[in-house]
Amino acid sequence: MLSAGIVGGTGYTGVELIRMLSQHPGVSLDILTSRSEAGTRVADYFPSLRGVCDLSYSDLNIERLAECDVVFFATPHGVAMKHAKQLLASKTKVIDLAADFRLQDLDTFAHWYSMAHSEPDLVPSAVYGLSEVNRDAIKQADIIGNPGCYPTTVLLGLQPLLSEPGLISQRIIVDAKSGVSGAGRQGKTGLIFSELNDSFKAYNVAGHRHHAEMLQGLNAQQQNTYELTFVPHLVPMIRGMFSTIYVELTSSGQAKDIQEFYENYYANEYFIDVMPPGSTPETRSVRASNKLRIALYPSQSNPKHLTILVVQDNLVKGAAGQAIQNMNIMFGYDEKLGLEHVPVSP
Amino acid sequence: MLSAGIVGGTGYTGVELIRMLSQHPGVSLDILTSRSEAGTRVADYFPSLRGVCDLSYSDLNIERLAECDVVFFATPHGVAMKHAKQLLASKTKVIDLAADFRLQDLDTFAHWYSMAHSEPDLVPSAVYGLSEVNRDAIKQADIIGNPGCYPTTVLLGLQPLLSEPGLISQRIIVDAKSGVSGAGRQGKTGLIFSELNDSFKAYNVAGHRHHAEMLQGLNAQQQNTYELTFVPHLVPMIRGMFSTIYVELTSSGQAKDIQEFYENYYANEYFIDVMPPGSTPETRSVRASNKLRIALYPSQSNPKHLTILVVQDNLVKGAAGQAIQNMNIMFGYDEKLGLEHVPVSP
Amino acid sequence: MLSAGIVGGTGYTGVELIRMLSQHPGVSLDILTSRSEAGTRVADYFPSLRGVCDLSYSDLNIERLAECDVVFFATPHGVAMKHAKQLLASKTKVIDLAADFRLQDLDTFAHWYSMAHSEPDLVPSAVYGLSEVNRDAIKQADIIGNPGCYPTTVLLGLQPLLSEPGLISQRIIVDAKSGVSGAGRQGKTGLIFSELNDSFKAYNVAGHRHHAEMLQGLNAQQQNTYELTFVPHLVPMIRGMFSTIYVELTSSGQAKDIQEFYENYYANEYFIDVMPPGSTPETRSVRASNKLRIALYPSQSNPKHLTILVVQDNLVKGAAGQAIQNMNIMFGYDEKLGLEHVPVSP
Amino acid sequence: MLSAGIVGGTGYTGVELIRMLSQHPGVSLDILTSRSEAGTRVADYFPSLRGVCDLSYSDLNIERLAECDVVFFATPHGVAMKHAKQLLASKTKVIDLAADFRLQDLDTFAHWYSMAHSEPDLVPSAVYGLSEVNRDAIKQADIIGNPGCYPTTVLLGLQPLLSEPGLISQRIIVDAKSGVSGAGRQGKTGLIFSELNDSFKAYNVAGHRHHAEMLQGLNAQQQNTYELTFVPHLVPMIRGMFSTIYVELTSSGQAKDIQEFYENYYANEYFIDVMPPGSTPETRSVRASNKLRIALYPSQSNPKHLTILVVQDNLVKGAAGQAIQNMNIMFGYDEKLGLEHVPVSP
Repeated sequence: MLSAGIVGGTGYTGVELIRMLSQHPGVSLDILTSRSEAGTRVADYFPSLRGVCDLSYSDLNIERLAECDVVFFATPHGVAMKHAKQLLASKTKVIDLAADFRLQDLDTFAHWYSMAHSEPDLVPSAVYGLSEVNRDAIKQADIIGNPGCYPTTVLLGLQPLLSEPGLISQRIIVDAKSGVSGAGRQGKTGLIFSELNDSFKAYNVAGHRHHAEMLQGLNAQQQNTYELTFVPHLVPMIRGMFSTIYVELTSSGQAKDIQEFYENYYANEYFIDVMPPGSTPETRSVRASNKLRIALYPSQSNPKHLTILVVQDNLVKGAAGQAIQNMNIMFGYDEKLGLEHVPVSP
Repeated sequence: MLSAGIVGGTGYTGVELIRMLSQHPGVSLDILTSRSEAGTRVADYFPSLRGVCDLSYSDLNIERLAECDVVFFATPHGVAMKHAKQLLASKTKVIDLAADFRLQDLDTFAHWYSMAHSEPDLVPSAVYGLSEVNRDAIKQADIIGNPGCYPTTVLLGLQPLLSEPGLISQRIIVDAKSGVSGAGRQGKTGLIFSELNDSFKAYNVAGHRHHAEMLQGLNAQQQNTYELTFVPHLVPMIRGMFSTIYVELTSSGQAKDIQEFYENYYANEYFIDVMPPGSTPETRSVRASNKLRIALYPSQSNPKHLTILVVQDNLVKGAAGQAIQNMNIMFGYDEKLGLEHVPVSP
Repeated sequence: MLSAGIVGGTGYTGVELIRMLSQHPGVSLDILTSRSEAGTRVADYFPSLRGVCDLSYSDLNIERLAECDVVFFATPHGVAMKHAKQLLASKTKVIDLAADFRLQDLDTFAHWYSMAHSEPDLVPSAVYGLSEVNRDAIKQADIIGNPGCYPTTVLLGLQPLLSEPGLISQRIIVDAKSGVSGAGRQGKTGLIFSELNDSFKAYNVAGHRHHAEMLQGLNAQQQNTYELTFVPHLVPMIRGMFSTIYVELTSSGQAKDIQEFYENYYANEYFIDVMPPGSTPETRSVRASNKLRIALYPSQSNPKHLTILVVQDNLVKGAAGQAIQNMNIMFGYDEKLGLEHVPVSP
Repeated sequence: MLSAGIVGGTGYTGVELIRMLSQHPGVSLDILTSRSEAGTRVADYFPSLRGVCDLSYSDLNIERLAECDVVFFATPHGVAMKHAKQLLASKTKVIDLAADFRLQDLDTFAHWYSMAHSEPDLVPSAVYGLSEVNRDAIKQADIIGNPGCYPTTVLLGLQPLLSEPGLISQRIIVDAKSGVSGAGRQGKTGLIFSELNDSFKAYNVAGHRHHAEMLQGLNAQQQNTYELTFVPHLVPMIRGMFSTIYVELTSSGQAKDIQEFYENYYANEYFIDVMPPGSTPETRSVRASNKLRIALYPSQSNPKHLTILVVQDNLVKGAAGQAIQNMNIMFGYDEKLGLEHVPVSP
């Protein structure tokens, strides 16, 4: 039984970690911290957890956290990096759900997150926690930079095509749509119900933080291979993420049966579902589960064009679920353990 | 052509006033003030108003506002009362959409709004702007306390039964449901989309400010005639208010054909629609319009029991629309002028 | 390991039964039937079940169903009664999620469901599956009439007050609000998204089928003790049910500490949560779980008045979850088995 | 005063035509027909029209319709073409909101709409009613094929770039998102609230009827100039359409200041709003109005790439509003007449 702690348990990734870890047969959730809510019972804060979790939030105390086997940071960017070293010193593994350990390039980090990295020497050993792609490195890792929600859909949606050089042309267009929970649990006017319901919009069109993270993943094999246009949109729904990806197949790419190629590539991945030809994935088909579904639409009029549709629950495979999947990998558990929730639909 | 000003034009009642006044043939909207957004073009703040309104927000300047014929206060409670006297001195009429001039009892005001009234001598001459009930007084008024949204549904829904003594028993139960825009345009965590969508709850069950306002209206003829249980609920929709009212008819009440009684009572009221027996009003049937619809359900098993269903758009008949209706009355305009918008449905 | 079958697996209670039974450690789900979809893989019909359920729908074959230990009917009213006798003959237990075995009075059944009961002799032995109230009878039962969603909230919300005679007055008012999934999965114009979103309405105000079922429960001890006014409303949300119940306490009722009384009454009930004073339950706090939460609001101004707020997920505690809870009771399983899902919130 | 009729007044474009025409100062709405609802008062069918419209639906009677100056067909595809000739013979102008007169190529029509055109000789004289593009032809037209909702956003969003040859490369990608009302008012299971709320999906990815209509518009100047990838998606909202358009600028295209080019091109168009650089249009900013807003995002990293965002209300500029705009043009009215509704937001 692993002892786990969560730093920052009052946001949506926090409560989702609590929901899933409290049902995980191999984990004892022992510490929850929150600056603002220290002393509050978590079940008073989130009534959905009444009868589920008896913990109260405590102040962030690294000594106590260092008694855990693993600590999840469900905090704003910049918190995990301040405490990681101390935890590692006690052999506590760190999984950061924010961006502190996602980007290897420190200038890029500083640019997009408006802060210098406080522990640059830790970054090289941090592993980008895209479970299906980096499984071997994750097994050995002490620090995980858990992927952003958009990058998870885009990199897993493209991974088979990235796995061999020269299958697609340089330009990739990602038209992505997210539920509102991706913006976090914060009292901003722009996030209130009356501003968002029954409406649809794009946002951060000129530049989104996840752009850099996706480029890093896309160009992991070789610098500057791929160029990315990324337009995120906000859907009046709570959970769910849908990425529509437009790529151009090279002649090598066109030579493949793309459907079969994807099915084979992901044949052994429990959480990745390559749907049959003609499927139209819906975000509700993965709601509250760690599944990610992919549908492939080769153009019927021009063999160069391929459209890839990807859905996930942004709070699960796009955040807390993948974090727990990484934990399972790191500690030698069955990767599915505690993550077999059937999607809630309708 | 009346010259109008709006103090506090960045909230929902503010933008709704702008939407309707900018289409009103008898009004020139000349001043919009906002502390926080002074200098901003209103059309930059609310892109729905691009091409509609060329004004910019200005700082609150009473001298300039005093040049208007009428000033609407779409501000938090406590603002209008500070400026009303100065405006009245310039013969500018005041319509307050907050609570400053709704309650005649100053202790009740102080209790519910946690502030002493700064201009107690103005209160007796202020008229409660429930248009259909107080039309004659409104014609003469210089200050209008525009009714709260819940009280508008409840008092208009019960007015025929209140118009004659002794038709209903003492106890009135109001189970009310509001769209989220009623909570205003403020960045509170409890109002964000992910907290409210696909969920339903009651709030302020132990006590809501509008309780006192409703009691004042219910007992306008005689103190302590009626006792009110009021439970407000929040619906995951933007606009719309639905009140389900449970009353007990006395033998005098039972002697009436309630349907006919209501139809006759409101026969000449353009904005009030007594629906045919068996109708189930929907809030969308009044969306973005100044209509209020009523349906009556006498019990089929017990002649004492009557259920009254009332719908309105909380931002229109429940706020900005009724304020303009009051303005029309005050200035001798046709009461419908600028208020004949057809409900937007679907 | 129990062998289970579901008749009618294409509706919402059907898919919810599949979701929960496929995760239930003591059940093997072996047969799913559907007239319209016989031959279709359930995972093609409900993509949320891809990788979860390998069954295909089959035609209704009583011989095959009779090999199961238990058969759930998630069918329209009138189906279960036609097949129950044959199943019972093979020692297969029957749990009907429709109304065939809810009402003991056959005339009442015929009136509300517009059909004569085809097996009147089975009705007396059928047990009304309100788990917490009828647990002992359920243990012995071969046929369960699983309660309607509204009656579950109302009867459990009132049960402590019903458990002793004379605590409340005759008249009970229930103002109930349901998510749309309660209307089932059928292509009716009145149910489409554009007719219901961003709007709120009452329906069946003059009479709802569940009225009779509630009256039967309320007056189980003694005929005609209680009189019920019931007004159901439709909320633009998928799942969730909220009942606001207004009762009048007698002097015996007022003598009790109602909060403490409820807490004690339900102290050992895992699925029933009596919330602390002042709580405002939200439907999302029980989403996708078998919990039902209750909050109590004694009036602060008149000791006679009590308001009771009750929330549940209409598809779980209000349907499929309670059905499985009853199955657990009938077969001697731990009542919580397979039903410990943590609510999904946000 | 024009006399107008509507054939098919029970769907969403029908009720939207009624809403707008009943407020239009130059139109008398005299006939509404409906096969299924003949004899029903429209205000009983759509309670939002109580007090607005006194008409009842009548059976389709061409003689009576032929007394109108203009008849709108808000019918399924294939109805208008059967009656157009007879109406034209009586000098009654025809505006079809379905697809009968949109496509000049009859084989393309037959392919996408699964029916042969019944009046092929009328097609050449029919004018495609994209008001801002075909204004001169519309003035002379007797039959208007009113554009589809998606094509309106795409063609108006691209029109400045299409107005000069050689500004963009061959391939155009349109990632489009629609509110559910675009699917019409029909009782299909796939359209019900519980299937669509809090979820997001693509549909008709392999081929959508509007693809042909867009290609016809894109290649109006010269065959086969442009190639189109079009992926439509469904948003859990009632009204609103958002198209994200990805194009590649040629060197001639890159030589232009695209923002200025668009602003100049549309400088005199009341209904088209080219927003300032950096704007993120929201569908609610045009709700219930005939406005269409455009924002332009030239890539900051690669001067070839341009993203164009377009919003409209699919029922207004995408259907009923543009139909009335066309009527205004055909009959020499001010193009804005009866169409100056301010968007309803929030």
